[in-house]
Amino acid sequence: MRVEEHIQQYLDQEDEKMAYLAKAIWDHPEIALQETFAANLLADEMAQAGFTVERGVGQLPTAFVASWGSGKPIIGILGEYDALPGLSQQITTEIAAIQQGGPGHGCGHNLFGVASLGAALALKEVMIAQNLPGTIRFYGCPAEETLVGKTFMAQAGVFDDLDAALAWHPGDTNGVWYGSSLAMNSFKVNFYGVAAHGAAAPHLGRSALDGCMLMDVGVNYLREHIIQEARIHSVITSGGQAPNVVPAFAQIWYFVRAPNRAQVEEIYARVLDIAKGAALMSGTTYDIDFVTGCYEVLPNRVISDLMYEKMQSLSPLTFTAQEIAFASQLQKSFPAGSLEYSYALLEKSTSGGYSKADLANPLWRQVLPHAPTPLVMPGSTEVGDVSQITPTAQLTTCCWPFGTPAHSWQITACSGSAIGFKGMLFAAKALALTALDLMTKPEVLRAAQAEFATSTAGRKYLSPLPAGTVPH
Amino acid sequence: MRVEEHIQQYLDQEDEKMAYLAKAIWDHPEIALQETFAANLLADEMAQAGFTVERGVGQLPTAFVASWGSGKPIIGILGEYDALPGLSQQITTEIAAIQQGGPGHGCGHNLFGVASLGAALALKEVMIAQNLPGTIRFYGCPAEETLVGKTFMAQAGVFDDLDAALAWHPGDTNGVWYGSSLAMNSFKVNFYGVAAHGAAAPHLGRSALDGCMLMDVGVNYLREHIIQEARIHSVITSGGQAPNVVPAFAQIWYFVRAPNRAQVEEIYARVLDIAKGAALMSGTTYDIDFVTGCYEVLPNRVISDLMYEKMQSLSPLTFTAQEIAFASQLQKSFPAGSLEYSYALLEKSTSGGYSKADLANPLWRQVLPHAPTPLVMPGSTEVGDVSQITPTAQLTTCCWPFGTPAHSWQITACSGSAIGFKGMLFAAKALALTALDLMTKPEVLRAAQAEFATSTAGRKYLSPLPAGTVPH
Amino acid sequence: MRVEEHIQQYLDQEDEKMAYLAKAIWDHPEIALQETFAANLLADEMAQAGFTVERGVGQLPTAFVASWGSGKPIIGILGEYDALPGLSQQITTEIAAIQQGGPGHGCGHNLFGVASLGAALALKEVMIAQNLPGTIRFYGCPAEETLVGKTFMAQAGVFDDLDAALAWHPGDTNGVWYGSSLAMNSFKVNFYGVAAHGAAAPHLGRSALDGCMLMDVGVNYLREHIIQEARIHSVITSGGQAPNVVPAFAQIWYFVRAPNRAQVEEIYARVLDIAKGAALMSGTTYDIDFVTGCYEVLPNRVISDLMYEKMQSLSPLTFTAQEIAFASQLQKSFPAGSLEYSYALLEKSTSGGYSKADLANPLWRQVLPHAPTPLVMPGSTEVGDVSQITPTAQLTTCCWPFGTPAHSWQITACSGSAIGFKGMLFAAKALALTALDLMTKPEVLRAAQAEFATSTAGRKYLSPLPAGTVPH
Amino acid sequence: MRVEEHIQQYLDQEDEKMAYLAKAIWDHPEIALQETFAANLLADEMAQAGFTVERGVGQLPTAFVASWGSGKPIIGILGEYDALPGLSQQITTEIAAIQQGGPGHGCGHNLFGVASLGAALALKEVMIAQNLPGTIRFYGCPAEETLVGKTFMAQAGVFDDLDAALAWHPGDTNGVWYGSSLAMNSFKVNFYGVAAHGAAAPHLGRSALDGCMLMDVGVNYLREHIIQEARIHSVITSGGQAPNVVPAFAQIWYFVRAPNRAQVEEIYARVLDIAKGAALMSGTTYDIDFVTGCYEVLPNRVISDLMYEKMQSLSPLTFTAQEIAFASQLQKSFPAGSLEYSYALLEKSTSGGYSKADLANPLWRQVLPHAPTPLVMPGSTEVGDVSQITPTAQLTTCCWPFGTPAHSWQITACSGSAIGFKGMLFAAKALALTALDLMTKPEVLRAAQAEFATSTAGRKYLSPLPAGTVPH
Repeated sequence: MRVEEHIQQYLDQEDEKMAYLAKAIWDHPEIALQETFAANLLADEMAQAGFTVERGVGQLPTAFVASWGSGKPIIGILGEYDALPGLSQQITTEIAAIQQGGPGHGCGHNLFGVASLGAALALKEVMIAQNLPGTIRFYGCPAEETLVGKTFMAQAGVFDDLDAALAWHPGDTNGVWYGSSLAMNSFKVNFYGVAAHGAAAPHLGRSALDGCMLMDVGVNYLREHIIQEARIHSVITSGGQAPNVVPAFAQIWYFVRAPNRAQVEEIYARVLDIAKGAALMSGTTYDIDFVTGCYEVLPNRVISDLMYEKMQSLSPLTFTAQEIAFASQLQKSFPAGSLEYSYALLEKSTSGGYSKADLANPLWRQVLPHAPTPLVMPGSTEVGDVSQITPTAQLTTCCWPFGTPAHSWQITACSGSAIGFKGMLFAAKALALTALDLMTKPEVLRAAQAEFATSTAGRKYLSPLPAGTVPH
Repeated sequence: MRVEEHIQQYLDQEDEKMAYLAKAIWDHPEIALQETFAANLLADEMAQAGFTVERGVGQLPTAFVASWGSGKPIIGILGEYDALPGLSQQITTEIAAIQQGGPGHGCGHNLFGVASLGAALALKEVMIAQNLPGTIRFYGCPAEETLVGKTFMAQAGVFDDLDAALAWHPGDTNGVWYGSSLAMNSFKVNFYGVAAHGAAAPHLGRSALDGCMLMDVGVNYLREHIIQEARIHSVITSGGQAPNVVPAFAQIWYFVRAPNRAQVEEIYARVLDIAKGAALMSGTTYDIDFVTGCYEVLPNRVISDLMYEKMQSLSPLTFTAQEIAFASQLQKSFPAGSLEYSYALLEKSTSGGYSKADLANPLWRQVLPHAPTPLVMPGSTEVGDVSQITPTAQLTTCCWPFGTPAHSWQITACSGSAIGFKGMLFAAKALALTALDLMTKPEVLRAAQAEFATSTAGRKYLSPLPAGTVPH
Repeated sequence: MRVEEHIQQYLDQEDEKMAYLAKAIWDHPEIALQETFAANLLADEMAQAGFTVERGVGQLPTAFVASWGSGKPIIGILGEYDALPGLSQQITTEIAAIQQGGPGHGCGHNLFGVASLGAALALKEVMIAQNLPGTIRFYGCPAEETLVGKTFMAQAGVFDDLDAALAWHPGDTNGVWYGSSLAMNSFKVNFYGVAAHGAAAPHLGRSALDGCMLMDVGVNYLREHIIQEARIHSVITSGGQAPNVVPAFAQIWYFVRAPNRAQVEEIYARVLDIAKGAALMSGTTYDIDFVTGCYEVLPNRVISDLMYEKMQSLSPLTFTAQEIAFASQLQKSFPAGSLEYSYALLEKSTSGGYSKADLANPLWRQVLPHAPTPLVMPGSTEVGDVSQITPTAQLTTCCWPFGTPAHSWQITACSGSAIGFKGMLFAAKALALTALDLMTKPEVLRAAQAEFATSTAGRKYLSPLPAGTVPH
Repeated sequence: MRVEEHIQQYLDQEDEKMAYLAKAIWDHPEIALQETFAANLLADEMAQAGFTVERGVGQLPTAFVASWGSGKPIIGILGEYDALPGLSQQITTEIAAIQQGGPGHGCGHNLFGVASLGAALALKEVMIAQNLPGTIRFYGCPAEETLVGKTFMAQAGVFDDLDAALAWHPGDTNGVWYGSSLAMNSFKVNFYGVAAHGAAAPHLGRSALDGCMLMDVGVNYLREHIIQEARIHSVITSGGQAPNVVPAFAQIWYFVRAPNRAQVEEIYARVLDIAKGAALMSGTTYDIDFVTGCYEVLPNRVISDLMYEKMQSLSPLTFTAQEIAFASQLQKSFPAGSLEYSYALLEKSTSGGYSKADLANPLWRQVLPHAPTPLVMPGSTEVGDVSQITPTAQLTTCCWPFGTPAHSWQITACSGSAIGFKGMLFAAKALALTALDLMTKPEVLRAAQAEFATSTAGRKYLSPLPAGTVPH
């Protein structure tokens, strides 16, 4: 039996256990930084399988690193498991929360963590069988939804000795995600004023809300004078109690994003100047509550192409008539234009090989070739930070119907169902096969690292986190 | 026995019952529009005393009107009984909540309602004894703290047939409050936009928060072009969820105030234009959630002077050494400058007859003459609306130490103690004596009404509430 | 002949010469800081009369001080002579410029300077005749319209040794102006940015206009949090060249005013913080072009009452039928409401003695008693600075029809006519008589100085001008 | 002699006359809408050559259309001749105005008009010689610098019957400009308020400047919610007179630009809503002074490729050692980075065939192939409007040293020298040869028109000008 077959066979055997784990996490949805159940479940599983587990890395109680083997190369596989607030949902085609207002796996991270774990276990299996040198690492990464987890883990240096990293994300098609993303800073600005009666003594008051308002006006004036690809957006998270009191406290929460980290840093510095200006204008003081930050994803062509080759080599996904009917029914609940939107995105991120006729089947089976030019996704992920430390590639598999809106109850429904579990298994296999090649074909790894060296031009990773930042 | 003595004697007899009622309400603090216990307690008491009670007036379940007697003149006495959120406090000189974060009678309205009730009962007593014609009314007025109660009651016409109205408020001195206040509108502006991903598609979003922001900028530009005595203040009560989503909803809450109602209406119309402008600017829509509004207080010199005369005719308040010690101790917890601030206010609102040396005693016994020129209090009250419908006067009595800050735990503490109950009794007597004269001396009532006719210049009361406004 | 008669007789003799001088200045209208002709004409006249003349005081080429006599007391009389841009006008009742767009004496300062000069000459005459000790000073004060002259003269210390100062202003009634005014700072904020093509490279530009805009937004937010009597107003004097270039320069010009100097200083400091904040927000730099500043007028009751007494002692003004017809005709050109506005002001600033029936005659003859409480004029004058250095009083005489709008062509017309010259002569007499008493009645002067000492409470005059400010 | 040779020979003969005309216009620089001398000079020249000349087209006294021949096809050649304010300059390598502050040909339009005229004359010459059917048109297009000319001409329909149009622009290399530009609207917003004394009665004032300010704040908030490629920029052209008067008038001038006309219209409508909102907010009224607007350039690949072929077929430009020395000297006066900037632009707009070594010669001789994908120039031109009516192509020739900044005195210097005249002759030849093929090769014209039909998708040209707009 070829080693590739061994991997697939092993994972097919583990299918039930993986589905069990994914369902257990789905049944205990926990939002960012609170994933105690999921982190313990997965870490214990790894420990039981003989992996050395370090828990609580990067100041994060629910982050862990599980290692097996020794020496070079060291290949990392990333797993996530946090849920989203407000997306509790039963496994049905109509919106119906299990717990009204409760959290739910509306981004499919219950699948994410388990597929990666499966890949790591499969790899261990063949490394033993083949007596392969090297180290396999599974990274338990919490709080992806708030972009906190991997940034703090990276700051702690846990990815520093990797030779390459692999990740994936549940999705509505199959393929390699060979793209970039926006680097970002997330921070809250607290303004502190002086309370006073709004009618009797407004001249004695200094309004913290004025601080927020003026800062926001300043930021809107800044828009003209930054690169057009940058994004700044905000909400007011605390805007005073009652009109008759000049607000002594107010808070505004910002995201600053741009195609690369240096641009984010430059714009962030200017936004801080605006905060300072707003405090001067309103006679208030302020401080910055830095939440998190991340780098843009640095795609790696070598590993991405390898990944695609591996995905193609697998037996395609198959779905039952019932699953397809479920998926079709679900599609009917999507907002108008959802399929068109997804299709347009597909056209930009792949190099074809399909047509609109393929949309007849709501569940995608085909593996799509990625476009040669990386698309910049107008969002952010701290996989970006890992990708700036070591050559990194990501894939996606079909875990829900085509066109499913991001962060939706429909995703929660599918992530707890067989549809999601099938996509998860497919991902585990592709990850394991890719990792195997990186383990066993030095020339491939060298090529990936050479590309990485060129892309980063020797730039060392510096954490986006100001000294002393605590995850929250 | 003179009728005046009869009134005082009666109230001295009822002292215990009044203290019981005030304590019962103090023990069940209920915030605005939720005063079921207090309203029922007082309404039942009145019903039991033979008054005809109409409950739920002015769309307000906790408002009631209790009437006794028949024919003219009709004299109204106003009572309030709502508590304040967050001011739960034991009867001690140190801050110590009974229920952490719970409501408390931090404005002394438990005393307010009961003194007015006592005055009405006393009046009934002497009207029977003297076989006096006329009608006495007790108005159970809820939700004063949110300025909702009397405005909705006035809209329903319950004050329309009054010949005069009397009110009082617990305070830190004794005297008539011959002053005015600011007319006001309280309203929330809801902006409705279109949600969109802040990084991926901000051009498709229309930010409701932008609506609030631009409105607020517009309002700040308005400040230069309104009369300097006007006041506009606001808080942002809903400012978006998370920065990555263009907010589809946001809300800003405004108070507009000015020395008189016409000015408020004029400025309010301009603020509405600004809301409209902000919606046009941000591509959003908006609507107005009108909370409440009120008139400025129209003071009545005739009744105010009568009230002062009556207060002077009473035996002065007396406090025990223990009460004085409690009050002194409490004063130590006041913010710096509290006594100075109160003294300065006193100098503006009275015509003297005291000196700083009098501050040696924390509890005021003397009745102070009001200043001849009404002082405009830089705050608002819907007693204003009553005062625009019928000649109205208000007094205050010492229920807590001099310099006690408004809306404070110290007031809660005193309002549940013998200090507050003594001030309450004093107020009940003064109200009853004043009402008696208005009942029995037609020339005084005529003079008060003539003054009222001159002051209003034939202007009819129009409710500040837009059609369809529901109390909330 | 009594000394008072001597003064009046002397000035009646000099009437023709005074009219000649006033007409010469009227014929050569010069705006602020350019009053070479007027300054030389008056200074030469004083020099010829034996006064010692110091020219170019206070960094101002057109300011001068003319002194006669020696020793104490030293009494100063202030004169002004600058014209206004755009108010060129013939001596007719219809608008008709002599020089289209040219300057004109639309504030009557051609009369102002000459009456004061006349008073100084008359005083010299009687001091010689009576062999009186003391010094008489005539101050040639330029650039009143831009509030520059007396501030810079005061900074140079030229008023420091005065025992009292007198001034007047042409007007539409006769009386003492016993009032105050607003202290003020006038300054321009220059913002410096970086030019860039607005379409091609806006991200490389830093907009100086953004600096102005953001500063102005900041100032409008400040309005809520300053005393309501303060005033801040501005114009944009340079706002960029063409839209396709990010403006590298922009300028905004502010006035900050408040009832007293300390308040102006406090608010000014906050406005400077706003400028700094706006520069931070827009990535620009800025500097302050301080134009001028002044104090509020400190009225002196003692001298004001003396002045009134003197004015009353004079033969009243008389006007010919022709003059009255001219004035009536001119009144027809006034904007609607002008007479009502002036009458309302009169009621506030005087203590009566007249009725609306008196308006039948457009030219006021009667001398009106000033109100006992000083009215704060909502404008500014650097007579304020003199009044903070030495006891100062001001009067006004009828030089144009009642209700004439400030700074108008109608004033130009009257200021060149016999109407204006008559008012000027009346003013000269009143000033001289008042000065004489201050010279000869030490108890009056002492009383004025005692009042001044009380009012200023020992506060020393500090120039509002930052070090290094140059008049411009 | 081949017809192509005939054209070249003819133009070589006319070289001197063309240089004379270009120098005459250079010597009489006239800014937009004032080009009487240039328009007459060129129109007269055409009339003399037998062209039918219609003057004053499109409401523009200095616009004209000169036609020769009859029937189809009709080929138009565009010429411009307006100068720029402030760019007066001698033909030297150091900045030295002929008339300080006067206008100058700092964009080389003196060459532009004459080369196009030469091409039209050459075409007439060979049409006669070859007895060719068809019509040749020369368009005298004024006011390009303000984007007024061709828009108003297009509105008048003067390009409607064209089969194709050709244009060029002097530059620093040789090649076809196969690119697009930004569509645009230029408009001023006038706000009208109510004047009032800033200190005495600001509540009676309505500030027109507030209108501008609030509009600008609104526009800056809009930036987040429009496509990132759009541009809005503004200057304040009238911002009030003096701070003490609430401004009754103020004006802000905007450019709105975007990659296509529909986007401009959509954003413009939103900006008008903001103007309306600002008027509502400030209690002012407003109107729009629409200056001009234009479309994006629609490039035509067929004619562009033809043009390149023709340019390549010509003998290359030659420059004397003296001219090269002049050019090298001039380059030394360029701002740092000018050559790098131009080179970067070159790399984006061409498909190579050169290297940085070529920069050794400041004057470009080689004809560069245009890039296959049209580059969007981040600026605007009303050639865009012509290109939306008929297939249009544009070329550039070397008339000044590589890297010369746009709108500079260095361009003025070169445009009056032999360097410019040589580039002009080269352009005339290329234009004539291209026009000849369009005249004589129906298949080429058909292909160009087919491409145009596809690009416009049947969309008819609608003038960007609102009804009633007058050029100004």
